[in-house]
Amino acid sequence: MDSHAYGVIMAGGIGSRFWPMSTEDHPKQFIDILGTGQSLLQQTFERLSNICPADQIYIVTNEQYREITKKQLPGINDSQVLCEPMRRNTAPCIAYANFKIMDLDSKANVLVCPSDHLITKESVFNEVISQSLKQAATKDVLLTIGIKPSRPDTGYGYINYEKTNAAFSKVISFTEKPDLETAKKFVASGDYSWNSGMFIWNVNSIDKAFRELLPEMHLQFEKGKGKYNTEAEQAFINQVYPSCENISIDYGIMEKAGNRQVINADFGWSDLGTWGSLYEHIPQDQGGNALIGKKVMSLDARGNIVHVPNEKLVVMIGLDDCIVVEHGNALLICKKEEEQKIKKITEGL
Amino acid sequence: MDSHAYGVIMAGGIGSRFWPMSTEDHPKQFIDILGTGQSLLQQTFERLSNICPADQIYIVTNEQYREITKKQLPGINDSQVLCEPMRRNTAPCIAYANFKIMDLDSKANVLVCPSDHLITKESVFNEVISQSLKQAATKDVLLTIGIKPSRPDTGYGYINYEKTNAAFSKVISFTEKPDLETAKKFVASGDYSWNSGMFIWNVNSIDKAFRELLPEMHLQFEKGKGKYNTEAEQAFINQVYPSCENISIDYGIMEKAGNRQVINADFGWSDLGTWGSLYEHIPQDQGGNALIGKKVMSLDARGNIVHVPNEKLVVMIGLDDCIVVEHGNALLICKKEEEQKIKKITEGL
Repeated sequence: MDSHAYGVIMAGGIGSRFWPMSTEDHPKQFIDILGTGQSLLQQTFERLSNICPADQIYIVTNEQYREITKKQLPGINDSQVLCEPMRRNTAPCIAYANFKIMDLDSKANVLVCPSDHLITKESVFNEVISQSLKQAATKDVLLTIGIKPSRPDTGYGYINYEKTNAAFSKVISFTEKPDLETAKKFVASGDYSWNSGMFIWNVNSIDKAFRELLPEMHLQFEKGKGKYNTEAEQAFINQVYPSCENISIDYGIMEKAGNRQVINADFGWSDLGTWGSLYEHIPQDQGGNALIGKKVMSLDARGNIVHVPNEKLVVMIGLDDCIVVEHGNALLICKKEEEQKIKKITEGL
Repeated sequence: MDSHAYGVIMAGGIGSRFWPMSTEDHPKQFIDILGTGQSLLQQTFERLSNICPADQIYIVTNEQYREITKKQLPGINDSQVLCEPMRRNTAPCIAYANFKIMDLDSKANVLVCPSDHLITKESVFNEVISQSLKQAATKDVLLTIGIKPSRPDTGYGYINYEKTNAAFSKVISFTEKPDLETAKKFVASGDYSWNSGMFIWNVNSIDKAFRELLPEMHLQFEKGKGKYNTEAEQAFINQVYPSCENISIDYGIMEKAGNRQVINADFGWSDLGTWGSLYEHIPQDQGGNALIGKKVMSLDARGNIVHVPNEKLVVMIGLDDCIVVEHGNALLICKKEEEQKIKKITEGL
């Protein structure tokens, strides 16, 4: 294992589309949403620990989730949990982690990834990441992982790249969630991939990119030099965060940088962004109902996704294509095709 | 109030069509199924107490429900709860109650009724029953209450009667749950009514009918004379019940008796036999969702029936024409048109 390999897991989201399983108190990444016995964060940490030494994996999350993070990852040190005092987008999160890691290891190569995605082909993932870390170690590049698109999904971002025979291709442009017609064209063209939201770079390359493309933010975090990895770190972060720009790494850096590259891969990835996207990853009964819960019975019911506690007895009769989720004292029953409305109704709660 | 007026409430059923609200431990008649604050049994008792002295209302139920009956009707005496040691049909239940009442009052006139029906027009009900009790007091007749049919319901029994101008008509025949074509003809003909399952007679008329039409059963209960209304009553009942024929009063007596009459009425009656039949009796939101439960939200959801605890938060999105019921640790979600399957699936539980 590469001793300069580091991981940064971004775990500060609220996951409001997964209500009522996911709530602000206990969001998606901390939930065993696939019924595997592990939360998505635990799965992500375990996956990364095959690539980086476990004590070199950092979790950036909200102060609100410090305790649950430590509870779910009992082997880690307190210093591996980086807490934001308030919600900002991914750019400040990555700037913070990068200054901290740079302070420890100026030769560090870093994989930055979300905490709440699914990857089913771990060995392919390991191979792709190892290859990317090697590329990042020797080149001044900002690498992103592209996923071979299997359908014209309008929920994903797309990466347009220069087609060559090399593993790493130059990125031409990023397109956020296109309409269906555009998505179909992208998929047909063969030179677009899905944006997985995973990045690999060495600490100096991304530091340089911040300095050039988000100079104000870079300056803000640079003022913390000497405080990272000391007892003064949290107080500094608490002080600097409120004035940080609320901007994503995609918009702030990746869409503008000249040295960005993509490596396309197929390691059974899903961003698990919607209940519908879980469907194919959950064991199904004869009626094609994806069931998490040990006491769920169905009669003439098809295509439903059910996520309930194991002890709950659920009987579905004649129900088709619904999402049925119970968590705590809340029950959601939603037609699959209407699930974009979940966010709308739960914002009022 | 007529001092010879007695009530017999039959409250031994299981109500399996109302799972999961209704369970064998806690069946339909003991549930506040309409969200009124009273169970159906409590409503029935209160209704009868406008007609009979409250201490002359008897509840016949299963031994299993003795305590819940006493708990729900705290004003009654222990002797008013008649307990069957096992499930038999309505004929033994009525024979038992009749021998007991006859022993107390040889001039008693008795209203026998189910415990789990809905009646919304109480004053009309009171008038019809008073009139019927008077008829029963002076005539040797077996009266049944017919309900003016408002639709060709195939879930009810029908009474064919001789049309006259009199309040009480001679019954020609009974037909159990006809097919739709037949039901349509019945309703169109104008000389059919729905069988409400309520009966009125004096103790001697029904005693004579048992003696003639169910002579063996009559003999069995007659052996208890001297034990009714004593400490020996329950032991006698426990001993005689197992050998009683399992037969309904309709099949055993009413379909065969010569002196049966019907009085037709319209007092807002429903047998509340199915979840669907509750729909119109429960307050509805703007989407036509009939809701029992204080925290139920719906978005583009129509025509559902929801029955959940007040503290349960339920969000329905895009759901149409379903029955959603939570009780204890069980949840039912069933398309309204499929509700006849509830019984099927819950029999296996």
